[in-house]
Amino acid sequence: MATHRLIAKVKNSKLLEKEEERRDLGFGTRITNDRGRLINSDGSFNARRVNVSFWAWLDIFHRLTVLSWPRFFGVVFLIYFVVNCFFSLLYMLLGVENLQGIQATDMVGQFWGAFFFSAQTLTTVGYGHVSPAGLTVSALSSFESLVGVLGFAIASGLVYGRFSRPIPKILFSRNAIFAPYLDINGWMFRMINESPTELVDIRVDVSMSRLETLPGGQRSRRYYPLKLERSQVNFFPLSWTIVHPIVEESPLYGATEESLAESDTEFLVYVRATEETFLQPVHARYSFRFEEIVWGAKFIPMFDSSTTEEIVSVDVQKVHDFEPRPLN
Amino acid sequence: MATHRLIAKVKNSKLLEKEEERRDLGFGTRITNDRGRLINSDGSFNARRVNVSFWAWLDIFHRLTVLSWPRFFGVVFLIYFVVNCFFSLLYMLLGVENLQGIQATDMVGQFWGAFFFSAQTLTTVGYGHVSPAGLTVSALSSFESLVGVLGFAIASGLVYGRFSRPIPKILFSRNAIFAPYLDINGWMFRMINESPTELVDIRVDVSMSRLETLPGGQRSRRYYPLKLERSQVNFFPLSWTIVHPIVEESPLYGATEESLAESDTEFLVYVRATEETFLQPVHARYSFRFEEIVWGAKFIPMFDSSTTEEIVSVDVQKVHDFEPRPLN
Amino acid sequence: MATHRLIAKVKNSKLLEKEEERRDLGFGTRITNDRGRLINSDGSFNARRVNVSFWAWLDIFHRLTVLSWPRFFGVVFLIYFVVNCFFSLLYMLLGVENLQGIQATDMVGQFWGAFFFSAQTLTTVGYGHVSPAGLTVSALSSFESLVGVLGFAIASGLVYGRFSRPIPKILFSRNAIFAPYLDINGWMFRMINESPTELVDIRVDVSMSRLETLPGGQRSRRYYPLKLERSQVNFFPLSWTIVHPIVEESPLYGATEESLAESDTEFLVYVRATEETFLQPVHARYSFRFEEIVWGAKFIPMFDSSTTEEIVSVDVQKVHDFEPRPLN
Amino acid sequence: MATHRLIAKVKNSKLLEKEEERRDLGFGTRITNDRGRLINSDGSFNARRVNVSFWAWLDIFHRLTVLSWPRFFGVVFLIYFVVNCFFSLLYMLLGVENLQGIQATDMVGQFWGAFFFSAQTLTTVGYGHVSPAGLTVSALSSFESLVGVLGFAIASGLVYGRFSRPIPKILFSRNAIFAPYLDINGWMFRMINESPTELVDIRVDVSMSRLETLPGGQRSRRYYPLKLERSQVNFFPLSWTIVHPIVEESPLYGATEESLAESDTEFLVYVRATEETFLQPVHARYSFRFEEIVWGAKFIPMFDSSTTEEIVSVDVQKVHDFEPRPLN
Repeated sequence: MATHRLIAKVKNSKLLEKEEERRDLGFGTRITNDRGRLINSDGSFNARRVNVSFWAWLDIFHRLTVLSWPRFFGVVFLIYFVVNCFFSLLYMLLGVENLQGIQATDMVGQFWGAFFFSAQTLTTVGYGHVSPAGLTVSALSSFESLVGVLGFAIASGLVYGRFSRPIPKILFSRNAIFAPYLDINGWMFRMINESPTELVDIRVDVSMSRLETLPGGQRSRRYYPLKLERSQVNFFPLSWTIVHPIVEESPLYGATEESLAESDTEFLVYVRATEETFLQPVHARYSFRFEEIVWGAKFIPMFDSSTTEEIVSVDVQKVHDFEPRPLN
Repeated sequence: MATHRLIAKVKNSKLLEKEEERRDLGFGTRITNDRGRLINSDGSFNARRVNVSFWAWLDIFHRLTVLSWPRFFGVVFLIYFVVNCFFSLLYMLLGVENLQGIQATDMVGQFWGAFFFSAQTLTTVGYGHVSPAGLTVSALSSFESLVGVLGFAIASGLVYGRFSRPIPKILFSRNAIFAPYLDINGWMFRMINESPTELVDIRVDVSMSRLETLPGGQRSRRYYPLKLERSQVNFFPLSWTIVHPIVEESPLYGATEESLAESDTEFLVYVRATEETFLQPVHARYSFRFEEIVWGAKFIPMFDSSTTEEIVSVDVQKVHDFEPRPLN
Repeated sequence: MATHRLIAKVKNSKLLEKEEERRDLGFGTRITNDRGRLINSDGSFNARRVNVSFWAWLDIFHRLTVLSWPRFFGVVFLIYFVVNCFFSLLYMLLGVENLQGIQATDMVGQFWGAFFFSAQTLTTVGYGHVSPAGLTVSALSSFESLVGVLGFAIASGLVYGRFSRPIPKILFSRNAIFAPYLDINGWMFRMINESPTELVDIRVDVSMSRLETLPGGQRSRRYYPLKLERSQVNFFPLSWTIVHPIVEESPLYGATEESLAESDTEFLVYVRATEETFLQPVHARYSFRFEEIVWGAKFIPMFDSSTTEEIVSVDVQKVHDFEPRPLN
Repeated sequence: MATHRLIAKVKNSKLLEKEEERRDLGFGTRITNDRGRLINSDGSFNARRVNVSFWAWLDIFHRLTVLSWPRFFGVVFLIYFVVNCFFSLLYMLLGVENLQGIQATDMVGQFWGAFFFSAQTLTTVGYGHVSPAGLTVSALSSFESLVGVLGFAIASGLVYGRFSRPIPKILFSRNAIFAPYLDINGWMFRMINESPTELVDIRVDVSMSRLETLPGGQRSRRYYPLKLERSQVNFFPLSWTIVHPIVEESPLYGATEESLAESDTEFLVYVRATEETFLQPVHARYSFRFEEIVWGAKFIPMFDSSTTEEIVSVDVQKVHDFEPRPLN
């Protein structure tokens, strides 16, 4: 605090201009191991944050939302079981004789009697063949029914939230290809919407990530946006072939199969769209690594010519199909 | 992998520049049959994706959301019936004598007794004149009430989701018209919001789609955006006549009734807006085919002059009305 | 169809250029009565659409959402009563003796017995002191509990939807003023967020609407956007004075109190923002008519100087306060 | 109204041009006490609006949403208790003998009997060991079950709304630093997403707020946007160091530790992003005051080198760590 510090020595910077031109998707430049990929095939990032605080780590809502259905129902069932056990034990502590209608005289029978009474209270079924008596047990069952109503509100909300969550089912072609395109060549892949819900206002961003050797010999990861022939469409009823034309300005100009492998090249695809049922935004990520690029091919049209109807029909499973074709 | 492949032969491309100017709404250029339309009158696409994977095809949520109300309630009722049958049979398997209160002694009577007990458990009514006894039947009914609570959470969510889904009720004029406009001519149609919910921030995109014959004789579908006099308004309390002025740059300049028919011309309308109750986005699609264009007409104002109040009043049903008027 | 029609006589249009410059908020030019305003003080439009189709007119969801709370609960209660009456009559038709536990022997007593049984079934309380017997009555009560669960799903959804609907509570100053501003004058109004929820990313659009006399003597309503000193802020924790500086380009340049009155001038305000609790969009409309403009005044600062705390404090009710001040 | 007023004396204004360049985040220029900060460390504004109208002040929905969990459940429990007391008293007024099954003969015992009956009715458990008889009590319990269903709809909605509300858990570095950057210096801070939910399309705005002395000697608060090396990234799987390069145009150019303190400088950070689970918008605010700036330092990389896996791993808690480093 005491020393007089001043920021004024340097006025401008050529390095800065260069830096500002550089693009970063958010992965940074330090990921230089060339064994793994940046984006996994399910769209998740190949990265992990450790040592997070307990509450941030917990994030029950997010965890319960992304769980698979069988696991989710398993968790709900487990919680239902444990909560009933807990209240059952409380009822036994307060005296099971206050639950009128339980005839069992042994501990195990009384436990299950209290357990099923608890279940009937929690779900608000309340048959009434077992009913609470006495102040404490009545109060506890009143409280339990409140817990039940609020707890099942969360469970129900989660079930519906999971059920209605918009997850686009976009099928990407297994391979990206270098294909002849007009009088030049292009880097292409193809995708189609597999879901019956239409997608509208679809936007695609493709970036290329590769390792480069800095003057000092150090390796650094760089990112280049790939200019697309068309990066946005209004409707997506059929398949869409995304094309990056390889002109002189393209970072792929002059690339060879070996150079892509040597620089650990990965093509990162980011799709944003709006699903039509509830006009909600959806998005999808995908990536093609250098091994998944085919050199000299052409996608085979997906139209289903078996029908003679007026309606246009495409066969979704043909999205991966290509045939060899020499490059221009 | 072994061969050394290189992309560097072609530097630039004039074809590419032309290609980039070309517009595509997402239908592609291959739809060249001239019997069907691209967009149906209900806004759906005249296209179909076949051979999708089972889970993508299923998409229960989307299907149950877009079903008509009678069918939806039919499905809910059917599921309710089948699930109750299923649990009823389980109760009978475990011994219907464990359901205290069922007096029936014949199979059919016992089935219905178990069936109604199941219904009372699933909906958590639980009158209690029939109640479970014994470990297995009590456990099953506890489980069934859990199924009921979660199942009806989905059903309830769906009912509410369907009920609150923002579907704009925009009424389009039956015909688009070529009308005199200022000192030139214009292609016009008219629309009005039929719903009591106001729409705000309305944006309209109109494209023209037509078949063109390529130099090689092949036919290809092309798309042209139509420049509108006004493509966006803040509020939409009255009717709105959308006008494409036909100046020299217009793709409609010099068009004739025959040329539109010959090229299977279709005008595709895409409306985006925000509904005011919940500030949710809504959208609507519509299309006018060449047969639905009237040459030389003018829309008749929709103001309702029968009232003498201060409030401005328009008659929604007049949206279709036009009268003949020679073109400029 | 037979005649060969052609659109090619006129190439360009000077009128078109002028027309494209004209702005329209969506009210059109035909509203020329000068007795009413365009936007009412509650933000609704002073316009009405008549003769809409039945289903569009019905739009139960929207109607039940915008109803006042007392009316809404009245409607819910009424439906609850009517549905119970309906089912009560059905139970009586099927034989009230099938509802075990109803002791009444007179019609009225039986009706109310069935009525309360119905209410207990619909809400799934199901005490069980009255319980269904016989196939048809049991089936009907099973069906009624299904109706209850689904019906209350809608009611509950509506209650919560109404409760959580983001309605900004923006308080506008009662008057807009012409005030000295820097070395010129400005048209100003002031607003403040009255709700405890913060608003972020606030955007304001102000338009002036006035009647103009066309060369032919006909009157036409015209709209002019007012350029604001600042039309967007990130945060809105205090009050915000929106200023339109009156420079030579302003449509208000040279205006007099009489000219504003004569041309039925109305200033239309449209505010868009994001509320912070759920990051939902909200918006508000307001309008100042010429009678609500004060000439030569200045808003009095709203800071609450009664506190000596570190926190900045403003008095919301002072938003309307101004004092006379000569114009520049 | 009578006097002829005219706005036409001044044509243009140099002051206006300057004013329009000035930036305001929405705090205004009047906050000139230099003891407090504008944005607190939890992102809330250090400002208060007093004297708001009752209904705006109430805003139950917002209040119940932002309450801490223990308090929220406390409020729900309290309301549950009070409503049951209320209905219990009503039942006693109408005659507790109409609640069949209550054996208590003393007032207190009857009150609790009615209380628990009320609780069973409100939550729709309805065991039935106590059941209503007589028209008025039956009607009241029918009404109470309606209140219960609708009331718990709100409570449940609130519980789920709170539970699912997207609150980004972004961890900001405790200090911002002046660090050497390329061949110049930069003002930097670092942040990382602590939540397991990924954030996408992250945008950062940084503004500098400081007191300036106007020619007249009066102090006024001014705001300057800080130009960032990179203000937007697509993905945010790892940490992100936000850098403002200090070039000649920067408002920080020539700044000293003393000048920042003297002018009560505060750096305001505003982060907007989309959380990935439900594609909802989220945002976060943060601020660094001059005392929290470290001069001459460099952030230490956060990569967790303890693992030898392919996955990239960062240690969240290292986000604060820096080491001294002389400025350029």
